[in-house]
Amino acid sequence: EDAKEAIENMSDPYSNDPKRHPVLKPASVKPFNAELPLSLLIENFISPNDIFYVRNHLPVPEIDISTYELEVEVEDTDKKVVLTYEKLKDLPKHTITATIMCAGNRRSEMSKVKIVKGLDWGPAAIGNATFTGVLLRDVLKLIGVDEDSNYKHVQFEGLDMDPTSKYYGSSIPFWKAVDKRGDVLLAYEMNGAPIPRDHGFPIRVIVPGVVGARNVKWLGKITVSQNESDSHWQQNDYKGFSPSVDWDTVDFNKSPAIQELPVISAICKPEAHQKVQVKDGHITVQGYAWSGGGQKIVRVDLTIDGGNTWHVAKFDHQDSSEPPQHWAWTLWSAKIPVTTRIKNAEVWVKAVDSSYNTQPESFKNIWNLRGVLSNAYHRVPIELQW
Amino acid sequence: EDAKEAIENMSDPYSNDPKRHPVLKPASVKPFNAELPLSLLIENFISPNDIFYVRNHLPVPEIDISTYELEVEVEDTDKKVVLTYEKLKDLPKHTITATIMCAGNRRSEMSKVKIVKGLDWGPAAIGNATFTGVLLRDVLKLIGVDEDSNYKHVQFEGLDMDPTSKYYGSSIPFWKAVDKRGDVLLAYEMNGAPIPRDHGFPIRVIVPGVVGARNVKWLGKITVSQNESDSHWQQNDYKGFSPSVDWDTVDFNKSPAIQELPVISAICKPEAHQKVQVKDGHITVQGYAWSGGGQKIVRVDLTIDGGNTWHVAKFDHQDSSEPPQHWAWTLWSAKIPVTTRIKNAEVWVKAVDSSYNTQPESFKNIWNLRGVLSNAYHRVPIELQW
Ligand SMILES: [Mo]
Ligand SMILES: [Mo]
Repeated sequence: EDAKEAIENMSDPYSNDPKRHPVLKPASVKPFNAELPLSLLIENFISPNDIFYVRNHLPVPEIDISTYELEVEVEDTDKKVVLTYEKLKDLPKHTITATIMCAGNRRSEMSKVKIVKGLDWGPAAIGNATFTGVLLRDVLKLIGVDEDSNYKHVQFEGLDMDPTSKYYGSSIPFWKAVDKRGDVLLAYEMNGAPIPRDHGFPIRVIVPGVVGARNVKWLGKITVSQNESDSHWQQNDYKGFSPSVDWDTVDFNKSPAIQELPVISAICKPEAHQKVQVKDGHITVQGYAWSGGGQKIVRVDLTIDGGNTWHVAKFDHQDSSEPPQHWAWTLWSAKIPVTTRIKNAEVWVKAVDSSYNTQPESFKNIWNLRGVLSNAYHRVPIELQW
Repeated sequence: EDAKEAIENMSDPYSNDPKRHPVLKPASVKPFNAELPLSLLIENFISPNDIFYVRNHLPVPEIDISTYELEVEVEDTDKKVVLTYEKLKDLPKHTITATIMCAGNRRSEMSKVKIVKGLDWGPAAIGNATFTGVLLRDVLKLIGVDEDSNYKHVQFEGLDMDPTSKYYGSSIPFWKAVDKRGDVLLAYEMNGAPIPRDHGFPIRVIVPGVVGARNVKWLGKITVSQNESDSHWQQNDYKGFSPSVDWDTVDFNKSPAIQELPVISAICKPEAHQKVQVKDGHITVQGYAWSGGGQKIVRVDLTIDGGNTWHVAKFDHQDSSEPPQHWAWTLWSAKIPVTTRIKNAEVWVKAVDSSYNTQPESFKNIWNLRGVLSNAYHRVPIELQW
């Protein structure tokens, strides 16, 4: 029996994946992708490591810290440095609090309009953590690359490998990598502990304000280049399209790779179809809001009458950093008055960020074949109890 | 008669305002505020000076270039420099192409939901020009202020004066003023000519990606500070609010001053209620799209069936600069197929920017008492001719 299992495991590239917290609800198991129940998601401004949402594209690599090396190079030059884990930890230390979100967060709502291709995420493919590490900007200076250098992209390769032995890859615009206010981090700690295996041990690049897919885990190589990463995930995935584009007509060259994410929000308490007690003529609603690009949330509006009256939420937790370096989500709550003795209602939320961008109303008009950028109003039907 | 007119003029602070091009349609005359007919607006990627929209808050000051001085100082210190026009022109020269838009652009559509306070702008309170001048960043270095300095705001004062002898004022965040990619310009040229009087002669500060109200004309004073400008226009105007906030409940301290503007678009041809010829089963629609914060427009979608089918516009003119320094608007056109022999249609447009933010659908849910940030879908009813 044991021998048989061992043989099966040998052929299963996922057999060395770490154990996960049982509360994580898998959207897929191999690769492992999982989110938290909504009520737990907003219990903490800082999401604990063991219940931080997991979005893996491939098996989790097993990395020996004593032999780990991070290659950093400039394409077509001999500018290069190889950094060990110890060397990275010797460089100047920097800490940020940043929210990471999957491009497919809230996809399940978009797929109700029309089927989309992708993991069926609810609104919890998002988390907020404190990351400590070395600024990519500082590491690039080691090889003579700075803000005045003329490059266009910085490519990242993970040590996670697909069945054809290609590494996971992505890239970000050069300016973001070297910008004084970019805060791009080669992180070795998450919430004060070594980065967990599921989140990129030993090094994950944290690109705050930018879609999770560019925050490459198990970082093995950094390449400064004139070109974007040629990886599948940069070129043929993680892009937005018009609702009219389907799999017969899509041309992935026509859309830019998602980088900064648009403004989003979600109601986490109550959840859909839950019973909500009316107290002193009010119901209480809680959730999160966030915007990419270092924008801060400036307002969260709620309605239970289809937009005839809106109520402004109170911010329960918001980081004090100012745009364009506001990387963390905002947790909010609202006491919404209920004036007539209704039995059912639909709660809607929308957020506004510091560039006064706001969310689109409906999924119909932002539908796209990959179900990404799913940031329409979150609409939650509830039952009122009097 | 002449004497009487002269006496009247003496008491009219607007008597020295410049002559304007007759094609400009005034939204108000004193102060002068005017936009172009829509069909003219998109005839040029670079809006000519004499027909660039005008948004003045106060009378146009008359400034003698030989005695003009620009004061630049750091609050509560003796760091200070006074720059003449000649001295400014001796400093390193920088040119950008930038769109300037009024926060109230397209207000007239929002006011159809419910009355708002403000000039009744159509969709042409916007223009795009080439500005040449000195980087504010370079001027601040002259007084020992750079990116590493610890200030929060940079205040601007115009030389235009209200009836109580207070100058027009506003401020921008410090980071934007000193940022390597901020491109904030003390401009002395607009489209290759000296800045016209209506647009700020001799110096206008151009804050690309940021609402017109911070692009102070007739610039007289720059103050580096820990505080925002205390002017009316910074504190009690040019802010967004929830649709539920009215003049009885508004608290201007509760909302941040508008800086970067959200993504917007408008249909300029055809205009509302015009007859449009169907040719080879298509109608042609043209317009502009723009986003603040240096974001580029990545897609413009149109529909004539209420969003059941969307059509992607072609970009007729787009600047090649990349985000976060894409300051210019995008001119687009679309050939929309008309499959059934309908007599009337409503054309809708929405744009998507490089952070994949898009426009809200309706004015009802973004309504605000000042009628600013009026960026819902532009919806134009037309008559089809077969
Ligand atoms: Mo952004
Ligand atoms: Mo922005």
